[in-house]
Amino acid sequence: MTQRKPVASLAEIHALVGELPGADKQAEAAAAARERTLTKPAGALGRLESLAAWLAAWQGRHPPAIRRPRVAVFAANHGVAARGVSAYPAAVTAQMVKNFVAGGAAVNQICRAVDAELRVYEMDLATPTADFTAAPAMSDEECARAMAYGMMAVEPGIDLLALGEMGIANTTSAAALCLALFGGAAADWTGPGTGVAGDALARKRAVVTEGVALHGPRAAGDGLEMLRRLGGFELAAIAGAILAARLARVPVLLDGFTATAAAASLTTLAPGLLDHCEVAHRSAEPAHAALCERLGKRPLLDLGMRLGEASGAALAIALLRAAAECHAGMATFEGAGVSGPA
Amino acid sequence: MTQRKPVASLAEIHALVGELPGADKQAEAAAAARERTLTKPAGALGRLESLAAWLAAWQGRHPPAIRRPRVAVFAANHGVAARGVSAYPAAVTAQMVKNFVAGGAAVNQICRAVDAELRVYEMDLATPTADFTAAPAMSDEECARAMAYGMMAVEPGIDLLALGEMGIANTTSAAALCLALFGGAAADWTGPGTGVAGDALARKRAVVTEGVALHGPRAAGDGLEMLRRLGGFELAAIAGAILAARLARVPVLLDGFTATAAAASLTTLAPGLLDHCEVAHRSAEPAHAALCERLGKRPLLDLGMRLGEASGAALAIALLRAAAECHAGMATFEGAGVSGPA
Repeated sequence: MTQRKPVASLAEIHALVGELPGADKQAEAAAAARERTLTKPAGALGRLESLAAWLAAWQGRHPPAIRRPRVAVFAANHGVAARGVSAYPAAVTAQMVKNFVAGGAAVNQICRAVDAELRVYEMDLATPTADFTAAPAMSDEECARAMAYGMMAVEPGIDLLALGEMGIANTTSAAALCLALFGGAAADWTGPGTGVAGDALARKRAVVTEGVALHGPRAAGDGLEMLRRLGGFELAAIAGAILAARLARVPVLLDGFTATAAAASLTTLAPGLLDHCEVAHRSAEPAHAALCERLGKRPLLDLGMRLGEASGAALAIALLRAAAECHAGMATFEGAGVSGPA
Repeated sequence: MTQRKPVASLAEIHALVGELPGADKQAEAAAAARERTLTKPAGALGRLESLAAWLAAWQGRHPPAIRRPRVAVFAANHGVAARGVSAYPAAVTAQMVKNFVAGGAAVNQICRAVDAELRVYEMDLATPTADFTAAPAMSDEECARAMAYGMMAVEPGIDLLALGEMGIANTTSAAALCLALFGGAAADWTGPGTGVAGDALARKRAVVTEGVALHGPRAAGDGLEMLRRLGGFELAAIAGAILAARLARVPVLLDGFTATAAAASLTTLAPGLLDHCEVAHRSAEPAHAALCERLGKRPLLDLGMRLGEASGAALAIALLRAAAECHAGMATFEGAGVSGPA
């Protein structure tokens, strides 16, 4: 990826979209050709086969390989947390960042288990976004700067990027973003998050309704404008990282509801903008399944997780590595002297 | 595990059942207690949490750990292959064993990707079982010897055992076993296997019907007798390995349809006999879903795989390792200074 000046406005992000490459059709075709020769009945590795082809297409090389996967966790605070939409106090964002740095969080253990590098990106936790029920969460410049910050996670040599987040109240942002993007009712997109229920959940839904009533009409179908008005710094950073990954030919694994909602904000920019992304797992946050369906994505894992912090995305790296290794390392029928179908 | 004389008859296997230990309730309780203190909302790791408790219960230790997982692939030939029930010639069993040994099969790559040891157990490929449409597949002694051979896979130090198979025509055996165990029609349990369709699939179903008509009534509800009459050497070995793992406190991951069918033959011996087993993935072989339901097992992965050779079981090791690492390695709320719910 050539060095470029960090984007400073959403207009520059819009301009960037025209530069984004498509799939590498040659690498994809090479994967399909090799797949047919490998020592197994055709199709017997199921989704591992399509994942190998997808990796080739979006890494732009054949065979695909996962040598340097990075797990990026973006952490930020939300003004809307003051509205009592989370079961946890806003201070937990900073406390959990300390926990990441000290190696004590779930994602630390999962990264070790799957042999992936973990990077935590702390985004000025002392300065939350504005409460989106009163004003846009971010200015144009703030949103662009957060996206530019996210783009930095895509460094040369990274060949798979798993994206996640930490931010008390960010499922409220994610729900508002989904409601603005896809319509419906607040209840369709607003769930328990870290565990709100009863009155607190009703309050969370009312906050989502309020925010979308205020900002939805002004965003006029522009996903980036919805992201600026209803999102958060970490959601913007994830969206930026997705664009940078596309430019640099790095496939992306999206974690749960919040990360997928951030990704969804890009879908208004151009068709197929998330084709280099897979959703790693189906979150237990109820709206995630509907969101994945809207995006045409089938999550790789379904283990009832709902932690965020890239935990599900990190876990799915093991599946992608197995897919790449099978594709690249298996013997062919001819090479191994194995008979084909009678 | 104390050294014991290899079992030599199915009567001895029946006698063994009384010695099998249950779950370690103390380790399980310790897991539940620790789980509540870890830095995440309660339940947010979903199934990884219950898997950690399950590992503790069946490893008989807390915290659970996966330090020496073994993937065991049993390979054998089936007399019923002569009836034209497979898309591949019987010679492929031996060819694939060579491929395993040379490192060229899918399971070799997956074991490398998940850092697990692979052992291939070749079971006299020159001598297939009898064609079960004409006679019992195995004598009592042959079946017991195959089970004893499988038991050897459980060596001291192994702390997780992933079980799979290779054997041309063995989904025919597995289907017959399921039909004998659970009833229904041959079509409920007989699918494409490595890829038979049309007339060949109809022939496969007829063979299953024939075999069960001959042996079902004589097995009189005894799973081991069904295994002996309709199974195969590798299925018997898997059943033996499951029993030995239970004795040695080693949790088990079952691969797809054939391995799960072998496990199912044990369910008539005592209730809860498969409680130390999880099904690793839902095979694309259609009957596997129904079989898992009968056993009350929810597969960990659902990636459309249908290869056998322990490929799915090996892949799921990554999930269990992540579960164990999260449970053992995460910080507690108190230790990390993270606030609980407000």
